[in-house]
Amino acid sequence: MPANNTNECDYEYNSEETLTLNVPSEYCDACLNGSTDSCSNGCLNNVKDVEEDKEAGGDAVKIITRYADGSVKLRNPNIELMDQDILYHLALGSESHDLQEMFGDVKFVCMGGTPKRMENFAHFIMNEIGYKLPAGTQLQDISAFSYRYSMYKVGPVLSISHGMGTPSVSILLHEIIKLMYHAKCKDPVFIRIGTCGGIGIEGGTVIITEEALDGHLRNSHEFTILGKTVHRPAKLDKKLARELKSLSSADDPYDTIIGKTLCTNDFYEGQGRLDGAFCEFSENEKMEYLEKLRDFGVVNIEMESSIFAALTHYAGIKAAIICVALLNRLNGDQVNSPKEVMNEWQQRPQMLVSRYIRKVLSHQGQLKSFYSQHGSIKSPRRFKLVQQESQAHE
Amino acid sequence: MPANNTNECDYEYNSEETLTLNVPSEYCDACLNGSTDSCSNGCLNNVKDVEEDKEAGGDAVKIITRYADGSVKLRNPNIELMDQDILYHLALGSESHDLQEMFGDVKFVCMGGTPKRMENFAHFIMNEIGYKLPAGTQLQDISAFSYRYSMYKVGPVLSISHGMGTPSVSILLHEIIKLMYHAKCKDPVFIRIGTCGGIGIEGGTVIITEEALDGHLRNSHEFTILGKTVHRPAKLDKKLARELKSLSSADDPYDTIIGKTLCTNDFYEGQGRLDGAFCEFSENEKMEYLEKLRDFGVVNIEMESSIFAALTHYAGIKAAIICVALLNRLNGDQVNSPKEVMNEWQQRPQMLVSRYIRKVLSHQGQLKSFYSQHGSIKSPRRFKLVQQESQAHE
Repeated sequence: MPANNTNECDYEYNSEETLTLNVPSEYCDACLNGSTDSCSNGCLNNVKDVEEDKEAGGDAVKIITRYADGSVKLRNPNIELMDQDILYHLALGSESHDLQEMFGDVKFVCMGGTPKRMENFAHFIMNEIGYKLPAGTQLQDISAFSYRYSMYKVGPVLSISHGMGTPSVSILLHEIIKLMYHAKCKDPVFIRIGTCGGIGIEGGTVIITEEALDGHLRNSHEFTILGKTVHRPAKLDKKLARELKSLSSADDPYDTIIGKTLCTNDFYEGQGRLDGAFCEFSENEKMEYLEKLRDFGVVNIEMESSIFAALTHYAGIKAAIICVALLNRLNGDQVNSPKEVMNEWQQRPQMLVSRYIRKVLSHQGQLKSFYSQHGSIKSPRRFKLVQQESQAHE
Repeated sequence: MPANNTNECDYEYNSEETLTLNVPSEYCDACLNGSTDSCSNGCLNNVKDVEEDKEAGGDAVKIITRYADGSVKLRNPNIELMDQDILYHLALGSESHDLQEMFGDVKFVCMGGTPKRMENFAHFIMNEIGYKLPAGTQLQDISAFSYRYSMYKVGPVLSISHGMGTPSVSILLHEIIKLMYHAKCKDPVFIRIGTCGGIGIEGGTVIITEEALDGHLRNSHEFTILGKTVHRPAKLDKKLARELKSLSSADDPYDTIIGKTLCTNDFYEGQGRLDGAFCEFSENEKMEYLEKLRDFGVVNIEMESSIFAALTHYAGIKAAIICVALLNRLNGDQVNSPKEVMNEWQQRPQMLVSRYIRKVLSHQGQLKSFYSQHGSIKSPRRFKLVQQESQAHE
């Protein structure tokens, strides 16, 4: 990391805020403020990591996480020595399934909380990229027999549910990264599509995460490995975030912004809500906290970003997080918008992801090949009529 | 808490272990060793909490968490002032649903990871307690429209999936405790039915958790509330644990034991597995860690116990955790037992819970009333014959 960041560490930070927010002393002000990517001031952000190696001009990132052909390499020497690798929570195995045949063409791994949302996304993206299924087939939940996550595949796109909270995402990412390795996927991009609470922004706003912060506002995720505390930077690909932002349209009837995302381990007390089973703070204390988050640059709160950023970054995988705000937390705690409105809002991050995937596929000439495929339906109007006729003759 | 515990704090503890395991200095040796419930030695375990109040002979626990009739009282003054309370993740609301009519008779809240296991448990317990559904009805997933958790109700028993990891359990417990309050449930008992990795015990062994430990071997769960770190004791009801143990039978072809449970935030690195996407420790270091856990009294590792114990304890709810070990981690990382064997193993904690529920209901005379109800089936043999005849005439 560059040595000339030292001056930025002199950034003035209100010491009262530091106290109230319980900001750890091991992070310096500039790093907490996000004004520098890594720090020479001796704070915790001074972690030697892949990204820094890359910034320093080295090819360390590629050597560690990619083979020469761009396919995913694991930071674990044990896997290639194993007879078989069972991906329990996906109901897949390296010797029971031909993972390269099944998943070798995957370029985009999209994840979100619920099986329902990710099933919907699979159908949505299928239509958007013009991907045709063979006659007499339908999408199948590949991981149905794990009873834990749902996974759908639409050509180069995987659509997977990750459940709620960082541990659930952690299990999934370990197995999906191993899946990318077994399948020899080349430079896959991971995108989390989520919902969140907004801080000072209205419901329906689309937020692209600039960096993920943990509950103590550190731009890292805390792991406990063999009983020891390990911090890994929770960094996302800034270029990808800007590219996604550039795909928002002036015609969109909502804002798309880039900002810091706070990741918590709880929905109620952990996000300063007054309406959990327990609450021992006042509305004033809550508002003071939320306003401090806002002043710190936090635009939204959710429960998965820090682990998603930390594990993808550690694996050298280009990743982004796009959420839609379901409410402005500065105005209240309970989500009161009608279901139809919320459903429309949840489409918005999906639409942005679709624009990105279409753009990349289009550049690679693949979109054209999808659209040139013949599907089952020649005329949607006549198709509907035939269905209705058929139903009437039961 | 009793002052005569001071001597127990002199318990000798190997300082090297302390270092390696990253045991926090704010916990004294006796408390870490579990040889005292709470401590006068000034360590973190000296948290003023409900259980201690109870032990001290006070009625503080009842005043805080129960109304005079034994129904659940919330440690949050805001809820009773709200127009309506939406339990988002359960697809229920205090004004949209008559929660007292629906759930007022609930006595046992059973939780486990996957929707599938908890649907199976609902059918299993229905048969075990002889509960009859009205003609022409079947069990329905009450929370189906939340797309997050599944919930089934069989008379006095709720069977709910909680997903994987502490944040997922946290959201559910907040809403279930609020549900108990809205429904005016009296002294409900919460039981987690899970799977785990054993430490020095064979696959198929049933483990009742004595106390839950976090990744740093603290008998507490760490919360971040308004940016501040808060520890809450991760205590379970010891009397209930002993009662459950007493219901194991000498005829059971497996052991049922009581011991300490380690709760981690990750399945791979967090549990010292060599087969995740990342691994930066050697097999020797892993074995050293697992053996230290064993020497510390840890008999199993899972991912939900600390939050389950901490939140139920804080709510003054009697709770227990019963898991079956899927493997002995001292022998390896991957689970290799055949599916049929694993399915049979997963029945074991359910059978213990059934014995407990039957015993309590029997004492209350309720079991008799269930069995005296007329169900739809007079003769299972003839019922089957009629079904087969009917199928043949399609």
